[in-house]
Amino acid sequence: MSVYKVVELVGTSEKSWEDAAKNAIEVAGKTLRNLRIAEITELDCKIEDGKFAAFRTKVKLSFKIEDN
Amino acid sequence: MSVYKVVELVGTSEKSWEDAAKNAIEVAGKTLRNLRIAEITELDCKIEDGKFAAFRTKVKLSFKIEDN
Amino acid sequence: MSVYKVVELVGTSEKSWEDAAKNAIEVAGKTLRNLRIAEITELDCKIEDGKFAAFRTKVKLSFKIEDN
Amino acid sequence: MSVYKVVELVGTSEKSWEDAAKNAIEVAGKTLRNLRIAEITELDCKIEDGKFAAFRTKVKLSFKIEDN
Amino acid sequence: MSVYKVVELVGTSEKSWEDAAKNAIEVAGKTLRNLRIAEITELDCKIEDGKFAAFRTKVKLSFKIEDN
Amino acid sequence: MSVYKVVELVGTSEKSWEDAAKNAIEVAGKTLRNLRIAEITELDCKIEDGKFAAFRTKVKLSFKIEDN
Amino acid sequence: MSVYKVVELVGTSEKSWEDAAKNAIEVAGKTLRNLRIAEITELDCKIEDGKFAAFRTKVKLSFKIEDN
Amino acid sequence: MSVYKVVELVGTSEKSWEDAAKNAIEVAGKTLRNLRIAEITELDCKIEDGKFAAFRTKVKLSFKIEDN
Amino acid sequence: MSVYKVVELVGTSEKSWEDAAKNAIEVAGKTLRNLRIAEITELDCKIEDGKFAAFRTKVKLSFKIEDN
Amino acid sequence: MSVYKVVELVGTSEKSWEDAAKNAIEVAGKTLRNLRIAEITELDCKIEDGKFAAFRTKVKLSFKIEDN
Amino acid sequence: MSVYKVVELVGTSEKSWEDAAKNAIEVAGKTLRNLRIAEITELDCKIEDGKFAAFRTKVKLSFKIEDN
Amino acid sequence: MSVYKVVELVGTSEKSWEDAAKNAIEVAGKTLRNLRIAEITELDCKIEDGKFAAFRTKVKLSFKIEDN
Repeated sequence: MSVYKVVELVGTSEKSWEDAAKNAIEVAGKTLRNLRIAEITELDCKIEDGKFAAFRTKVKLSFKIEDN
Repeated sequence: MSVYKVVELVGTSEKSWEDAAKNAIEVAGKTLRNLRIAEITELDCKIEDGKFAAFRTKVKLSFKIEDN
Repeated sequence: MSVYKVVELVGTSEKSWEDAAKNAIEVAGKTLRNLRIAEITELDCKIEDGKFAAFRTKVKLSFKIEDN
Repeated sequence: MSVYKVVELVGTSEKSWEDAAKNAIEVAGKTLRNLRIAEITELDCKIEDGKFAAFRTKVKLSFKIEDN
Repeated sequence: MSVYKVVELVGTSEKSWEDAAKNAIEVAGKTLRNLRIAEITELDCKIEDGKFAAFRTKVKLSFKIEDN
Repeated sequence: MSVYKVVELVGTSEKSWEDAAKNAIEVAGKTLRNLRIAEITELDCKIEDGKFAAFRTKVKLSFKIEDN
Repeated sequence: MSVYKVVELVGTSEKSWEDAAKNAIEVAGKTLRNLRIAEITELDCKIEDGKFAAFRTKVKLSFKIEDN
Repeated sequence: MSVYKVVELVGTSEKSWEDAAKNAIEVAGKTLRNLRIAEITELDCKIEDGKFAAFRTKVKLSFKIEDN
Repeated sequence: MSVYKVVELVGTSEKSWEDAAKNAIEVAGKTLRNLRIAEITELDCKIEDGKFAAFRTKVKLSFKIEDN
Repeated sequence: MSVYKVVELVGTSEKSWEDAAKNAIEVAGKTLRNLRIAEITELDCKIEDGKFAAFRTKVKLSFKIEDN
Repeated sequence: MSVYKVVELVGTSEKSWEDAAKNAIEVAGKTLRNLRIAEITELDCKIEDGKFAAFRTKVKLSFKIEDN
Repeated sequence: MSVYKVVELVGTSEKSWEDAAKNAIEVAGKTLRNLRIAEITELDCKIEDGKFAAFRTKVKLSFKIEDN
């Protein structure tokens, strides 16, 4: 039976948390085969000089590492 | 005094988690009277063929079922 | 060493949870120096007359109150 | 073997959280056979015009839906 | 886009928590179309007269209710 | 759009957790405009000399601080 | 320095969760010296024959076991 | 009204988590009267020399200590 | 002193959650030295065509990466 | 009966989390009367240029605001 | 197979949370055989007369009670 | 925009949880560029032969993996 690995990434974006999540998925997709789902585990905003600077989305991604 | 029921729905959207939540509220509003609030309990992304496919928003909705 | 205070605000917006968060950060920034980060602790939707009315984002903000 | 369904209700009362829970159980008991237990998952107070208005108790109730 | 509903059931079995989960899924499958996933949210054991009586598995099941 | 602040108070009472919550709401209402809801986040009992002394209710209250 | 032990009890009462908590504290006080605080960790209602039967309060109590 | 005590045990088994839970219940049943329910709070596997060694099940058991 | 790394895997099995966990441990053991413990963080069931398809067990495994 | 307010501070220190907590308590004590307890809700380390820079301790402090 | 019991203690110390934990372990070790691990479940500070008075560490300890 | 990866390590030390955290950060810093923050997710004590043996600190570290 298949075995999956779970990794946690944080994407950032000046536009939205959705865009930040997509950035993380895109970076993961460059090296990982068979991405399956992306659970969101944390949202926050980066603040610089007292003002909003970026949206950040923490994402748990799983991908197949073994398939018997 | 009033009694409310709580139901949990998952909306989906290719645009945003906000749009996915609105889809779930709209579907609920077709059959349920007196919707009151929509708490977000989970956000994730559906991935197909290693690429982003859709945003999903899990929503807890309460509505009045008895009003004495 | 520095000491920070943490406050919790709820921003609202008809557009998005991102916009609601930015509203809360902007209001906080009028009176608080040295805002540092904005963790999102809750998302929900206000519903009026059975229809979507507004997005709400609960935000934990920390800011410096002492710097020895 | 038996299978149970879990539903979530919110009772309200001007007197107490206990009374609010009993209201929810009574409404559930009108249509559901074999109620089994009522776990309390949230307590809050409704406030109107800056003053206490009602106690609310969120209740998880399970009841038998199949008994082989 | 699709909208899903989430229901919570408790299955029981004298053999195992796996068997209890399967019982809940089987009962749900009789009336619900398009079951999608079964998350386990609680495991316990029923005890009668001081001895083990049954395994119980609480299951969150989601199924499609609207597909535009 | 409106922005709310969230504050956390602990009310005490010799009679009940409901009475303790009402005490906290009453004290908050003296200085805060537009209280909105009171979520209960903790209940405990104070014990003195090995006996029950008071009920304590921790309450999260939100109130409007900006309304554009 | 002192060391405390933590025990968990469930009190029951037909009147209220407060009364159920006091019953648990009273029983603990018969054998344990130096009770210190009673945190409430769970509230539920026992249901018999489809009707409310009793309030139950789960209580964490700590008491001194060593004082150097 | 009755008062219950809650104890936490960890059972182990080479066969299954179910068998580990039953071992814990059996040991508890030797000295405790009126066991009532066994909630599962943690599952893990013991690993020795890089290989699976045993299943472990953490169990919360409650039993009657006073019945007025 | 030693330093450990923690990885999260999901094993699958048609037989049981125990078997799914063992599959994950076995795959991990092929490349990781000094596996220490396997905490279970999630259990679910995969459903295909409305019927049970597989048990899945999410496992946190730690292994030594440095030993001074 | 008394009413307490709860505030959340983050102390920092190059020495230890204990020292960071004491810094937060000392700053709070300059302006708040009747501090009662300090619960620790988060610990972390600040990292600068890839190296440890400071310990941070998030602290919930309660203090009396009304005493009837 | 072995069965373990889990007990919860609170150690105190004027020096550090580490020292408070060690005090709890030392007291437990006087009467309990085969202590196995000490998980930390809560840290706080006792405050007296508005000043830091002691560090407190809540510890879950497990020990073998049966070994077949 | 940047993307970060999150890894979880456990440091150990005979001196303190602070020292254990620093050991984990130091080991991570040997191979990972741009470490950003170290959140503490678990503290425990290793016990050998019924006596304290070592402090262990579980740490979540994030570091930049992509910077567009």
